[in-house]
Amino acid sequence: MPELRKDPIISRWVIISTERTKRPFDLMVEKSRPRGGFCPLCPGNEDKTPSEVFAFRDQNSPINGPGWKLRVVPNKFPALVIEGDLERQEEGIYEKMQGIGAHEVIIETRDHNANASTLSAIDFKNILFTYQQRINDLKKDARFRYISIFKNYGEVAGASMEHSHSQVIALPVAPKRAVEEMTGAEEYYKKNKSCVFCDIVKQELKNRERIVVENDHFLAFEPYAPRLPFETCMLPKEHISSFEVTGKDLFVSMAECLSLVLKKINKALGFPPYNYILHSSPTDNSENDFYHWHFEIIPRLTKVAGFEWGTGFYINPTPPEQAAQHLRETVVA
Amino acid sequence: MPELRKDPIISRWVIISTERTKRPFDLMVEKSRPRGGFCPLCPGNEDKTPSEVFAFRDQNSPINGPGWKLRVVPNKFPALVIEGDLERQEEGIYEKMQGIGAHEVIIETRDHNANASTLSAIDFKNILFTYQQRINDLKKDARFRYISIFKNYGEVAGASMEHSHSQVIALPVAPKRAVEEMTGAEEYYKKNKSCVFCDIVKQELKNRERIVVENDHFLAFEPYAPRLPFETCMLPKEHISSFEVTGKDLFVSMAECLSLVLKKINKALGFPPYNYILHSSPTDNSENDFYHWHFEIIPRLTKVAGFEWGTGFYINPTPPEQAAQHLRETVVA
Repeated sequence: MPELRKDPIISRWVIISTERTKRPFDLMVEKSRPRGGFCPLCPGNEDKTPSEVFAFRDQNSPINGPGWKLRVVPNKFPALVIEGDLERQEEGIYEKMQGIGAHEVIIETRDHNANASTLSAIDFKNILFTYQQRINDLKKDARFRYISIFKNYGEVAGASMEHSHSQVIALPVAPKRAVEEMTGAEEYYKKNKSCVFCDIVKQELKNRERIVVENDHFLAFEPYAPRLPFETCMLPKEHISSFEVTGKDLFVSMAECLSLVLKKINKALGFPPYNYILHSSPTDNSENDFYHWHFEIIPRLTKVAGFEWGTGFYINPTPPEQAAQHLRETVVA
Repeated sequence: MPELRKDPIISRWVIISTERTKRPFDLMVEKSRPRGGFCPLCPGNEDKTPSEVFAFRDQNSPINGPGWKLRVVPNKFPALVIEGDLERQEEGIYEKMQGIGAHEVIIETRDHNANASTLSAIDFKNILFTYQQRINDLKKDARFRYISIFKNYGEVAGASMEHSHSQVIALPVAPKRAVEEMTGAEEYYKKNKSCVFCDIVKQELKNRERIVVENDHFLAFEPYAPRLPFETCMLPKEHISSFEVTGKDLFVSMAECLSLVLKKINKALGFPPYNYILHSSPTDNSENDFYHWHFEIIPRLTKVAGFEWGTGFYINPTPPEQAAQHLRETVVA
């Protein structure tokens, strides 16, 4: 019997349908093939990217030269541009503004062939630390309301370059999904006097059947009403409203958790394309009692069809309890 | 210079970025290849589908036998099941109900190789008439709050069968997107004392640069703030809140408009995978002053990546004005 389940934050219903696949993880994985060719993100090609805005470098190595472990550069083909004013213009009933924003690429490693399974927990710690550094730096620009950090791995997931990287987009308006989550979480807080994410953590830790990884400070679990198979949520167990206010002492635990989740997904599902996206409070409301930052991790295993597009109503063939069990039982070195 | 544009109904911002593609329609089209093999939707295989619930048939031809032009059958692998009660159950802070609903397949034609470019306007009229018939029939079941009608064409767009078909899903809860559009349209109505879609029709007919097809009763245009290249909206020019109350006299005009839009998309973009989705008022509010039914037509030309998933903030490389001009200039027989 399929079930309809409701997301407790944004009230989205999904269909959890087990009758369409024989085994819950019997999904076609479209593997990314090596693409070859010239890579502008590799060491030695530093002059092929815009000038770096941040890096982990060997002592005394020159900016935009070799000797780096991780580099952040503006996107050469940015979706938004950094210069201009934020004037809203009306066109009859419509509204627009100039496409002001920042768009950066975080080159996560020197090694062209690295992936989440070859990167160490220390590499992840550096990457996560860089996310925080970029948010704090971009927040200084008062035009930006929201800093989005995300990673596309594999062509199917939208990665246009093979070399391991994440992206940063700073936006002058809060995106729709962020507004929805903030609104839903605030309503829950008004009603229940508690953070909905903290309550989810409490229930998942008690119930345990959807947990994937738990360590000192972090929890990764399959949400109760996931849109897609193996959709995974990772968040700090204590209440922290935005990524940038997270204490330095939590980064080892955070890196270990993210590293382990991605390694498990790679091993269990055969290196599927995936996206992960940081969800955090908008820049002008970074400390609050109702929102709780988290990573949304989405292996791209199924095609999103017309029904989902048109209705926002997802049909998920894999119950999250089964996905969680499969990932828990997947042992990585 | 990229632009940020806001959807007037659901307040979703999109980035219209022209700097990432050389030509606005220089997009990779992943063509669907013939898949071959046994087709349960073809004439002669009527016993391979569940028993039909509606058909256009030659006089005196037997139910579930040959002699049909169009057939509607329950989906053999339904996402929802028809039998059961709609009791909501709480699981701590979560909420679920049984997966009750209807899931039907509309086999649009006998011809296995037919597509929108080979179907006639009369075929389209029969298909559209069938949509209305199914909605009116399923509405009799008081458990259903929303009837979703959609079509997936091509594997990339989620079509699991090649034979030309649409689908119907009747749902016991209104899906997220429908709630958003209803809420946005109602707010607009309260503020402006007019239907936002009627105002859009007025402005598009005056401005004309985003129009794709216009005839007596229908208008197809590229929305001002589309998420994806060549996203197209088609709607009646006069105010009609739901598909099922649309007068029979409008179906010829409706069929001609939809037929022409799809034929133009096929010719201009090389038979891309696409989805179209009917957006209509929920069953318990089919006549109102603020909502206006429409088709959303989405050629699947770009990959949706992490940024879009995580934020609901889309980067569209094709300005709708250029897409509309390209489709207007595409002449079909």
